[in-house]
Amino acid sequence: MKKVKLQVPATVANLVCGFDILGMAIHEPYDEMEIKLLETPEIIIKHLDNFGLPEDPSKNVAGVVLLKIQEYLNLKNGFEVIINKKIKPGSGLGSSAASAAGAAIGANALLGKIFTEEELVYFAMFGEELASGVKHADNIAPCIFGGITLVKSSKPVDIIPLNAPDLFVTAVHPQVEVKTSDARQILKKNILLKDAIEQWGNIAGLVAGIQKNDIALIGRSLNDVIVEPIRSILIPKFNEIKEKSLQLGALGGGISGSGPSIFMLSEKQETSQKIAEMMKSVYDEIDIESFVYVSKINPSGIKIIEN
Amino acid sequence: MKKVKLQVPATVANLVCGFDILGMAIHEPYDEMEIKLLETPEIIIKHLDNFGLPEDPSKNVAGVVLLKIQEYLNLKNGFEVIINKKIKPGSGLGSSAASAAGAAIGANALLGKIFTEEELVYFAMFGEELASGVKHADNIAPCIFGGITLVKSSKPVDIIPLNAPDLFVTAVHPQVEVKTSDARQILKKNILLKDAIEQWGNIAGLVAGIQKNDIALIGRSLNDVIVEPIRSILIPKFNEIKEKSLQLGALGGGISGSGPSIFMLSEKQETSQKIAEMMKSVYDEIDIESFVYVSKINPSGIKIIEN
Repeated sequence: MKKVKLQVPATVANLVCGFDILGMAIHEPYDEMEIKLLETPEIIIKHLDNFGLPEDPSKNVAGVVLLKIQEYLNLKNGFEVIINKKIKPGSGLGSSAASAAGAAIGANALLGKIFTEEELVYFAMFGEELASGVKHADNIAPCIFGGITLVKSSKPVDIIPLNAPDLFVTAVHPQVEVKTSDARQILKKNILLKDAIEQWGNIAGLVAGIQKNDIALIGRSLNDVIVEPIRSILIPKFNEIKEKSLQLGALGGGISGSGPSIFMLSEKQETSQKIAEMMKSVYDEIDIESFVYVSKINPSGIKIIEN
Repeated sequence: MKKVKLQVPATVANLVCGFDILGMAIHEPYDEMEIKLLETPEIIIKHLDNFGLPEDPSKNVAGVVLLKIQEYLNLKNGFEVIINKKIKPGSGLGSSAASAAGAAIGANALLGKIFTEEELVYFAMFGEELASGVKHADNIAPCIFGGITLVKSSKPVDIIPLNAPDLFVTAVHPQVEVKTSDARQILKKNILLKDAIEQWGNIAGLVAGIQKNDIALIGRSLNDVIVEPIRSILIPKFNEIKEKSLQLGALGGGISGSGPSIFMLSEKQETSQKIAEMMKSVYDEIDIESFVYVSKINPSGIKIIEN
């Protein structure tokens, strides 16, 4: 019986100014997944975590991805998936993307690597569709490709892997609920052209900074004049955390995905640790439980640890 | 008496999807400028061309730049400038930017290179303000830096030089008038967020393509869903020329600046020549005089040919 074990990392979508197009893999937190190829056609999903996620494959993010692959290949085999989820659902750290991308990468490894990375993104997006109603790839792409990715198009899938600068990421997940659908609905359908121009100047600067490894340019491009001013209202203490992070030496940062997690980039580990402590204490003060993670940008994405 | 002779190239602003932020220098056409440092404080402007441009320095694009530099340095010297303009005013190929940038670069060379390139952009923007009412840097920056530039901000001046891919540029200037101010006024002040997202996906793709030297990615990023659909209405035969260029093998292209010139990028010289012939014949058919230029992306911008 063939099986693989995977470490499937959290991801930060949007990267401040790159709403709906940019994403970044980090090292911590990550889900553990074990996927077996079965001789029989069932899809079996087991969650070792206690998040109460559905185990019916047609209602499970990993399950629907495997069903799609099975259907596409007319496969007689099934899969058994054991998930130990450590990326909390609803954190804004790509929890559903991790299950979806892990299922796609795991199945592909078991089937002899028959798919390209872009095809894996295509299959994994069915998981995102189940989770949020939208087939978006901004978390899935960095999970599968690693590093920082540009989703130039999700239909057809056109992913541009960018460089992974040698930077530290601090992420804080305050235990408040921000529904992705709410975070999307409060955005305005119309924006000012002049704001859009400022935003695409920042996006162009961020992509150029990443590719030129110009850390200062990355820092001064991490500005979002369109989404952050609206969405940050849903996240307690967002402005205080951002301001204090910059004072402590962060290059910049903002909302991770649709929140409530907040992330900050730093050049030095020491800075990122100090930011982590500050974040924790800000939420402790107002009695909001929080989880803090410090790691580097993850250049390789999902790790197959046992085959 | 110190003097410099310059070749000051045409520039293509916007580069399709990068409205107001991207620009590119080309080799043809270019203005010839000769600038002398005078012992006396006058600014003397002479035009050898017949475009009827004002020679009063306070009303001349090169003149106002030199007046600003003179004022900034409390300079007792003046300048004599002889301009042989070959980049036609109103062509959308950065004619005013050439005079402004040439004046700044020339003065700087005569004064012992005391300014940074970004300071030269700052001074040259006063010329653009005189010409169009707006201190924009998207033509000036590539003229001064060469290659392709990102104007991340014009206040303060923050220019990011990008790579200059080894590509051919075909530009056609049909003799119709499109006023920059009109081309700006017909744009909508509000745009759809979904269009903006598509646009910044293309901008990110274009910048990534330029930095990775991924020619195919450059090609499929040259799409503008916001400005081109509106401005192209002002340019006769725009759609026909674009379509035929792509059929002939162009990577992509669009309106140069605010028009009426149209530019196309190609990998091969042969393709760019065929496109030039096609462009000319399309305008010949409807009795619009046109000028066609074929050259490579100009990686170094203004050339000092004699010092």
